[in-house]
Amino acid sequence: MPNATRARLIGMSGSLRTGSYSGAVLTTLGEKFANRADLRIYDLAAIPPYDEDCGSDNLPAPVRELLSAIAEADGVVLCPPEFNHGMPGVLKNALDWASPSTSASVLAYKPVAIMTATRAALGGARCLEHLRAVLGAMMARVILAPEVIITSVHDKVREGRLVDETSLGFASGAVETLLSEIQLWKSAETSKGFI
Amino acid sequence: MPNATRARLIGMSGSLRTGSYSGAVLTTLGEKFANRADLRIYDLAAIPPYDEDCGSDNLPAPVRELLSAIAEADGVVLCPPEFNHGMPGVLKNALDWASPSTSASVLAYKPVAIMTATRAALGGARCLEHLRAVLGAMMARVILAPEVIITSVHDKVREGRLVDETSLGFASGAVETLLSEIQLWKSAETSKGFI
Amino acid sequence: MPNATRARLIGMSGSLRTGSYSGAVLTTLGEKFANRADLRIYDLAAIPPYDEDCGSDNLPAPVRELLSAIAEADGVVLCPPEFNHGMPGVLKNALDWASPSTSASVLAYKPVAIMTATRAALGGARCLEHLRAVLGAMMARVILAPEVIITSVHDKVREGRLVDETSLGFASGAVETLLSEIQLWKSAETSKGFI
Amino acid sequence: MPNATRARLIGMSGSLRTGSYSGAVLTTLGEKFANRADLRIYDLAAIPPYDEDCGSDNLPAPVRELLSAIAEADGVVLCPPEFNHGMPGVLKNALDWASPSTSASVLAYKPVAIMTATRAALGGARCLEHLRAVLGAMMARVILAPEVIITSVHDKVREGRLVDETSLGFASGAVETLLSEIQLWKSAETSKGFI
Repeated sequence: MPNATRARLIGMSGSLRTGSYSGAVLTTLGEKFANRADLRIYDLAAIPPYDEDCGSDNLPAPVRELLSAIAEADGVVLCPPEFNHGMPGVLKNALDWASPSTSASVLAYKPVAIMTATRAALGGARCLEHLRAVLGAMMARVILAPEVIITSVHDKVREGRLVDETSLGFASGAVETLLSEIQLWKSAETSKGFI
Repeated sequence: MPNATRARLIGMSGSLRTGSYSGAVLTTLGEKFANRADLRIYDLAAIPPYDEDCGSDNLPAPVRELLSAIAEADGVVLCPPEFNHGMPGVLKNALDWASPSTSASVLAYKPVAIMTATRAALGGARCLEHLRAVLGAMMARVILAPEVIITSVHDKVREGRLVDETSLGFASGAVETLLSEIQLWKSAETSKGFI
Repeated sequence: MPNATRARLIGMSGSLRTGSYSGAVLTTLGEKFANRADLRIYDLAAIPPYDEDCGSDNLPAPVRELLSAIAEADGVVLCPPEFNHGMPGVLKNALDWASPSTSASVLAYKPVAIMTATRAALGGARCLEHLRAVLGAMMARVILAPEVIITSVHDKVREGRLVDETSLGFASGAVETLLSEIQLWKSAETSKGFI
Repeated sequence: MPNATRARLIGMSGSLRTGSYSGAVLTTLGEKFANRADLRIYDLAAIPPYDEDCGSDNLPAPVRELLSAIAEADGVVLCPPEFNHGMPGVLKNALDWASPSTSASVLAYKPVAIMTATRAALGGARCLEHLRAVLGAMMARVILAPEVIITSVHDKVREGRLVDETSLGFASGAVETLLSEIQLWKSAETSKGFI
């Protein structure tokens, strides 16, 4: 992929913990795909609680910036931890701003890769399922790839990087598919008016 | 039920909108059951984004107050709107504080009634399902009652109160069952050491 | 679309009831798209309970026929009723044969449109969500379209055909998208080796 | 518990495989609790596909027997394998007969313990979640216990018995809670008219 068409990707985890393992997975992917994509990891700490009273003309500045970043991105990589069998409230809150009840979703038709990382030996599956339901509601394009659930992630991250080859292979596979689908949908939209 | 044993209930919706319909449902239930229960509606606007770096000794004041309120309550009534086929991120964030990865859940074994109110004609079911999964993870006791999904809620609320008799009947039924189960579990725990 | 490229579609509902409303929806869609697609409605009454002991060389004849029909189809339309907040066991059983634990899924990478029809005024959403999870497990391509949930379907079917214009519009929209995605994926696979 | 009050339990897995691991888990639990409960493992091979045309007066004999057995049981233990991120169609089909669209659910208010066994290293969680949704629809009492997901079960079963102590501990804990809740609900119904 020539530089001109390097994909612009947004990564979000929803974990605010210093040294977050989910963040480490995103960082590792960003470095691995640096030649072909610009993966910007978006910190959600500054996003206020979603409030329907804020019309689209009156959004808090951090929300306006997040929505612009998503709108300009070619695709999204979500790698939340599983909290209480769901995604972090922090991530869901960001998605609520991205697809509010009062105006259009900036995630509509946006290709999205989903994966999850958890310290638990089991777990992760329900977080992905909730994500899939929520992204479906927003008409986001969840890309089709073998599922990425990184369990016992604390044993697989060293110095802020995912070092487990198997997990990294699955996660990279999802990003590969994301990049392919981004290209596919772009050409489909250009050549055929396919939405 | 004598005054001494009036149930203390916490109500949460996760909507921050002024004049929220979900809030109206909770207010109406609070008034209807005023003789038998004290239903305190908890505003979640002040709850910051969940951050695992805050240990249990270092919680933000609004979080500490919320956790105390839940711990002291006999039961909980959750009435979120459905946002993007899930619960509001604001509510999930509060639940993440209530059941953090680093310490015990204050919702464990707590009786909880769940219901949802939505402006949509369809919808609500997935919000309840996500709630049920998340509360199950926390070992909360989701009470057994016919499901309460209030659709087209904007047509059913007048002057801040739920005025649709059918919907109010279902919602009240859930609160009745909540009060019965609260009593049941209390006596079970007292007399038999049942957890 | 010239005859040579008319799409071959398989429709399944999982309801065995004579005069099934789900079947009526599929029949109506088959007639409406008759010029562009051959929608074959597959009766699942003859499919026996899934038994892992049957290896792929030893499948019951009705199962062998179903798997061939799916393998040869360009896409699938699923329109189950919601039974007990899930899909009919009859449909899940057919999907278990299609994607057994012991061999490859014939639904992998197959474009699939999903919709649901129910006599209830609420309901349908969870059936779709369970379908989406199950099809995701099989790596089927669930097409991206506004969700089709036909409630109170007994009021919308006359003489075995869906006559409610709004519902038919949504259901037809899903089939249109299915046909578009079938074309898109075919050309993508041909021209780029995209899987 | 004196003989007179030994609990009558029905166990179902939905797997028809000879030497099913799910069946082995149920057999092991039946033996372990033999002094306090009679756990009858119900083979679902003979249950025909659910057909709404069969009114309650016209049920196939194997279905009539299954419904009687459930009606007479004090509680139910479900231990399905996870097939395609859901429960086996065979089990869902049996539950559809137990809670048909045309008459009352024999599972209403029936205490149920749920667990899952799978050969996969991940997986199982979504099967439980689908079960929980479906049982909620039927107003069954899913008992409150730490979740039982037995992964890599082929390594944990020897000669038809679950031999992994950790897994057996979790599974037994669920049955203990089931027996306690059966007693609790019985006395609640007797003494207070609590439904």
